[in-house]
Amino acid sequence: MIRNIPKIPRLFFNEKQSTNLSTHELLIKLGFLTNPKPGLNNWLPMGLLVLNKLKSIIRTNLNNHGCEELSLSILSSADKWEKTGRWGNTELFKLKDSSKSDYCLSPTSEEDITLLVKNQITSYKELPITYYQVREKFRDEIRPRMGLLRAREFLMNDAYSFDVNEVQAMKSYNNMVSAYHEIFKSLKVPYVKADADSGDIGGDLSHEWHYPSVHGEDTLFKCEGCGSISNIEMTKSAPPKNHKPIDDTKEYFYKDGDEILKIVVPKDREFEPKFLKVHYPQAEETDLTHATKTVHDIRCDPEGLPLVLAQENDHCGHCSSPLKSFRAIEIGHTFYLGTKYTESLDFTLPVPIENSNGKTIDKHVVMGCYGIGISRIIAAVGDLKDDKGFKWPISICPWTVTLVTPPKFKSEDIILDVVEGLNDFRWDNRDIGLGNKIKQSNLLGIPIVVIVGRNFPKVEVETRWDISSPELESLGEKKDYKWIVHKDSLKQFLNILIKQM
Amino acid sequence: MIRNIPKIPRLFFNEKQSTNLSTHELLIKLGFLTNPKPGLNNWLPMGLLVLNKLKSIIRTNLNNHGCEELSLSILSSADKWEKTGRWGNTELFKLKDSSKSDYCLSPTSEEDITLLVKNQITSYKELPITYYQVREKFRDEIRPRMGLLRAREFLMNDAYSFDVNEVQAMKSYNNMVSAYHEIFKSLKVPYVKADADSGDIGGDLSHEWHYPSVHGEDTLFKCEGCGSISNIEMTKSAPPKNHKPIDDTKEYFYKDGDEILKIVVPKDREFEPKFLKVHYPQAEETDLTHATKTVHDIRCDPEGLPLVLAQENDHCGHCSSPLKSFRAIEIGHTFYLGTKYTESLDFTLPVPIENSNGKTIDKHVVMGCYGIGISRIIAAVGDLKDDKGFKWPISICPWTVTLVTPPKFKSEDIILDVVEGLNDFRWDNRDIGLGNKIKQSNLLGIPIVVIVGRNFPKVEVETRWDISSPELESLGEKKDYKWIVHKDSLKQFLNILIKQM
Repeated sequence: MIRNIPKIPRLFFNEKQSTNLSTHELLIKLGFLTNPKPGLNNWLPMGLLVLNKLKSIIRTNLNNHGCEELSLSILSSADKWEKTGRWGNTELFKLKDSSKSDYCLSPTSEEDITLLVKNQITSYKELPITYYQVREKFRDEIRPRMGLLRAREFLMNDAYSFDVNEVQAMKSYNNMVSAYHEIFKSLKVPYVKADADSGDIGGDLSHEWHYPSVHGEDTLFKCEGCGSISNIEMTKSAPPKNHKPIDDTKEYFYKDGDEILKIVVPKDREFEPKFLKVHYPQAEETDLTHATKTVHDIRCDPEGLPLVLAQENDHCGHCSSPLKSFRAIEIGHTFYLGTKYTESLDFTLPVPIENSNGKTIDKHVVMGCYGIGISRIIAAVGDLKDDKGFKWPISICPWTVTLVTPPKFKSEDIILDVVEGLNDFRWDNRDIGLGNKIKQSNLLGIPIVVIVGRNFPKVEVETRWDISSPELESLGEKKDYKWIVHKDSLKQFLNILIKQM
Repeated sequence: MIRNIPKIPRLFFNEKQSTNLSTHELLIKLGFLTNPKPGLNNWLPMGLLVLNKLKSIIRTNLNNHGCEELSLSILSSADKWEKTGRWGNTELFKLKDSSKSDYCLSPTSEEDITLLVKNQITSYKELPITYYQVREKFRDEIRPRMGLLRAREFLMNDAYSFDVNEVQAMKSYNNMVSAYHEIFKSLKVPYVKADADSGDIGGDLSHEWHYPSVHGEDTLFKCEGCGSISNIEMTKSAPPKNHKPIDDTKEYFYKDGDEILKIVVPKDREFEPKFLKVHYPQAEETDLTHATKTVHDIRCDPEGLPLVLAQENDHCGHCSSPLKSFRAIEIGHTFYLGTKYTESLDFTLPVPIENSNGKTIDKHVVMGCYGIGISRIIAAVGDLKDDKGFKWPISICPWTVTLVTPPKFKSEDIILDVVEGLNDFRWDNRDIGLGNKIKQSNLLGIPIVVIVGRNFPKVEVETRWDISSPELESLGEKKDYKWIVHKDSLKQFLNILIKQM
């Protein structure tokens, strides 16, 4: 018996291949995972192979960037969430233990990690620290979907940086941004980094990381001039030059201290209060209408502010070039947090005062936090499928190669000869036709099929990505979609092929 | 800068070394983990290194035995637990989601995996299957301890086998027993396999896997004659030969159908009802005392049954040789389950009837389940410590080697020369004395210290385990506790040393 040749998946798609299935339906149909309940996932062996490769890429790059892995308890006690004011979050899965103490299932770990580091270090000289984990997270979505994009239990890589001051904290932030670029580059799936709103997590600066996809839930805008990319929630937009101020308007009223603001925006556009708060952070909507001041959207008054959500053909608020929108799936988010959590959890360290003969002052530690939605990436990359099936990039495919033999072919000697040097393949030796095996391998998204048959020692190589190069041509002969390669050149041929994929 | 040299742990034991600390206190003090609440653990980077090596040993051996890894949702819905009658378990962590549906945090996954396999396969030809996972488990212990032995969240490797009949199921059971032997052998920590009671999990046959330890909560007996080992709950014992029947007795009454049994056991021994139930499965304790039948413990009547818990110097119930007791920590449990779960969850497959022209009959699938307490192993192996500190076996030490240099030593060239070929070490280059660094490395349980200093290219090698052999002597010179080795022989020397550890 040949040892350690991964078995074929137990579940496979026996029916006539359908391009009508959604990515998630296809993931389930082919045996990557199951949904025991909406928003909950069981990862089957083949899905776990994909997850594990992704986890490994993330770990390697974070370790190379000086981050250290740890693993926090999934149960997080209520006391710390009360201190940061987040216990009221309606999407927390809450439970009581047998002594009636309150816990939640961690949806994110700012509270836990801040207290852990607070208890662990005593000197600012031990900073910077960036800890990360790869961990199940929980969010009690009221309307979970069967897919991986809005799940109630999901796999996430979360990281947290701790620094002695703002300058150092920005260095840690930029170090993580660099790690994220490395991670997403090595996946070889086109991605974008966008200016983003910090939302509930809080903090002063944040970026989202997205895969452009027509199935995405987010709308992003890219400026054709300065190239800046931002989530619609953060896109500063302006009308084209020489645009006439719009008269057909609607009004909102906000109270800002003693002032009552009248907000004037075009009638057919969506007012975004966040944009107002950039300029009037304390402003709150009011029923009072005796305005003491009027604030115009820039479309209504060239001296005004950008106050409405951007639309296709709006211009960039920074450089006035046209904005183009696209849909995208959020796969990561990096936050410069500042001292939001170290203040509410009272984490300070004594820091020397300059020229004071060793006197110190207690300063709040400065944080960043960073997240990659690991199971979301599987869903987003799954969307790359075509009418033959999935198209996993080499970096995270369940196996790199399917080795296919004709029905009744049982010569393990030949297989041993072929597989020497291959270390990430499966052998499909079922007694079904070659064509079906190749189709199934394509459907599963295995990048390469190697067919061993009557022409041995010549073997055939088929790929999910059409690739050609002089190096490949020197080792194999291309016939339609297949390459004919001698078994002695196979290892070298595949190595080149894999590098070019 | 030298890349990828693991940093020294951020936390270390700066105080005068204390042998009074418990294993768990020392794990926390040295920075392997923290306890945010009793029974909950945060694994710090160094602890995670130990956990990860252990996980990797388990995965390799289970994969070699044909098992396939998957990963089930941590949230498990109440419906299936109600079907198997286990929803009433008082140690389940229970919670409701926003739509008021009931879930528990999985303490074990018989229900989930049975339903998953039931939905996944349609033919007995797809059997045998053995699935496993490496996963957090949850148990709402009423009296959790700070240690890893009675935790509320713990890391477990659980596996489940599915077979078409009892004979095949016993093969799968024995295959897992063989995998467990491989796993525990490769840890190189003395272990025992003991006959055990199946308890709440149920089933017909089970074995516990233990590390003998004076701190263990279990009492095991080993027979000096036949060598059988069993948990006290399962130990059949008898008095020595020529022992006089004991007259000083106490009595219990049990109802078994129409019979009222009077149970007679020695006054100073502990009656164990489980032993009675081996012979009278339906018997229940009763207030009725008009006995219709008397059942004697074998100590009171040579024709009687073994009905009391064994004691030191009892004899073996099988071979009559003396029994010796010892304390042990349970680290694994294997169960032959039979059809307990497939019956309550209605999982049958059509199986051909012999000589019936292809007629089939629906049969319940036969299961086994298997568990290794991963975080318990850390606690149990941690107990191997001596007055210098932990003594991790090579298989699961956080690092194999600490590379130690004197204060102010900054020559990275020399370090690069020494570390070539080492791939699992940390470099302690702090500006503190050599002696302290060596002490700390020993305390952490790092098996080998390599000291690079003034005598370079000669280096010193110290070990936590006193080892010597002609091969080592041909490459190095032993001086007291240290070996003096030339840097060019270091790699070969360490390879031999590691193999002999």
